[in-house]
Amino acid sequence: MRSDFDLGRFELVSGSNLPSGHLAYETHGELNAEGSNCILLPSYYTGTSSSYEPWIGPDRLFDPAEWFIVAVNLFGNGVSTSPSRAHPDIAGAGFPDVDIADNVIAQHRLLSHLGVKRIRLIAGWSIGALQAYEWAARYPDLVNAILPIAGAARCSPHNFVFLEGVKSTLLADPAFQHGHYSAPPVQGLRAFGTVYAGWAYSQEFFRQGTYRELGYASVDSVIRGWATDHESEDANDLLAMLGTWQRADVGRYHPGGFEGAMAGITAQAIVMPGSTDLYFPQADSEQEVELLQHGKLRPLVSDLGHVAGRPGIRAAETVQISAAVQELLGS
Amino acid sequence: MRSDFDLGRFELVSGSNLPSGHLAYETHGELNAEGSNCILLPSYYTGTSSSYEPWIGPDRLFDPAEWFIVAVNLFGNGVSTSPSRAHPDIAGAGFPDVDIADNVIAQHRLLSHLGVKRIRLIAGWSIGALQAYEWAARYPDLVNAILPIAGAARCSPHNFVFLEGVKSTLLADPAFQHGHYSAPPVQGLRAFGTVYAGWAYSQEFFRQGTYRELGYASVDSVIRGWATDHESEDANDLLAMLGTWQRADVGRYHPGGFEGAMAGITAQAIVMPGSTDLYFPQADSEQEVELLQHGKLRPLVSDLGHVAGRPGIRAAETVQISAAVQELLGS
Repeated sequence: MRSDFDLGRFELVSGSNLPSGHLAYETHGELNAEGSNCILLPSYYTGTSSSYEPWIGPDRLFDPAEWFIVAVNLFGNGVSTSPSRAHPDIAGAGFPDVDIADNVIAQHRLLSHLGVKRIRLIAGWSIGALQAYEWAARYPDLVNAILPIAGAARCSPHNFVFLEGVKSTLLADPAFQHGHYSAPPVQGLRAFGTVYAGWAYSQEFFRQGTYRELGYASVDSVIRGWATDHESEDANDLLAMLGTWQRADVGRYHPGGFEGAMAGITAQAIVMPGSTDLYFPQADSEQEVELLQHGKLRPLVSDLGHVAGRPGIRAAETVQISAAVQELLGS
Repeated sequence: MRSDFDLGRFELVSGSNLPSGHLAYETHGELNAEGSNCILLPSYYTGTSSSYEPWIGPDRLFDPAEWFIVAVNLFGNGVSTSPSRAHPDIAGAGFPDVDIADNVIAQHRLLSHLGVKRIRLIAGWSIGALQAYEWAARYPDLVNAILPIAGAARCSPHNFVFLEGVKSTLLADPAFQHGHYSAPPVQGLRAFGTVYAGWAYSQEFFRQGTYRELGYASVDSVIRGWATDHESEDANDLLAMLGTWQRADVGRYHPGGFEGAMAGITAQAIVMPGSTDLYFPQADSEQEVELLQHGKLRPLVSDLGHVAGRPGIRAAETVQISAAVQELLGS
């Protein structure tokens, strides 16, 4: 069941604030007496805390009988404070820039409130991985281990350009009205989804017809599916999270910059890029893992592109993730 | 100097026609008495016959003192018959579907008119490569050799999806008016260029800052440059060529399908994918070259992504292309 954690007036690293911020979250299992059995799962783009359910349960990655599992919602995702769900002063087009650091600071406050003393593992897919790195860099004494999957420690320049293209589709639709729409900018949203469809998977995914495994009858149905799925998204929410992502960088507020922030991470880390990911490419992870004190590279071998390892996507990938989880929790 | 070849009423493979089609072309050098020293250079997306000039000249890839070089313009490129330059019956939004096969059939008629008996080499970059394959499959007795660079023998499913995303930006701009615009759909064109910018290069290109070598001061200036460059393109021309590209497949009109068409190619072929190309990936070329009788794979090692090998882009890449040209023309 989902709860709301009231942040009151929440100061952002940019200098702006959320007048009455809240963080939506779910917990599974019980915190032990030492406050030391927490698993944190930060949510990803267009996902929610519920998206991690395929990982939670007996005989799944995280058993609530053993762990106190906290799944949190990214600001802007329509569940935590977001353009579509905010104080009138900042709703819609007026929503301030929220960074990955803001998410992590708010989550830190939540976990303190819940009595968590140490985090055994932060596992996150995609934008969840960006948050895992930020946590480990910002609060090294609190984090035992991280498992960033299909993500990175910052938004690379190419990733930024890809996102700028996706964003431009909404700007091309005058119905978007610079965020002051009354009715959804449907054509812009459809284009957003259509452009995204080319990036989400890999060339192999289409060459080998893997889309059939995901329930798409044809290439056309992939394209139509992505277009239609995005019609119901809130455009300002999409752009708020997209900005959070574009600004992501563990070194953004660190005196030692990117290298300094990475070197300061003391957590055990298994870094798991998707082997065919087009926008968090394995080559970026190969460079990042070299900057960590205790980092191991374990590419997730998959033809799913970025979608590799997304909770619930494919049993064979959960096996690879499970091995990493056992290694990190066993140590 | 550019000439126009009058095609009269030109029947298209789709069953439609161009009421008064013309093919714009340039020649360099003289045809020999046997009509056997022709080099054909078919143009590429948003390029023209002039785009191949960096390849032509003494001490360049093709010396006009030795070769009769014919550079031809793709239908839809604004120089050959195009939505922006057509008989009123088919201008603008009413332009019919034109296939790669139509381009090759028209080019065949042009070369016959010019007295060419055999083509020593067809070299083409990107969409020029699609035409080189189609030529070799359609007229095997006329083509000695082909050099497809940063291209393929068909548009792969992933390539189709990427193009669908690019196309969706124009559909998101109501100023496009389904092709019946009076003023250019500027926001759609800007979005078109912005989305394309993410695909044109590689992740490495951005990671390593290679954009500076191409005269861009920053990642932002790459994005702005691509957006601005596309403001002056004709939207219907862009979509006409994009459709030609999406339908490209040497097997489309061949009784043996794709494999049959490829197996029927008798030309010597050096297949040169860009090693970091995101939409004509090397893996596609690896599969295609296996289907050829006389094909060799020579990846163009480059961090430029698709832009690798584009005429004039970089001296180090011209060296790799030059070696392939010498091998094909020496045999």
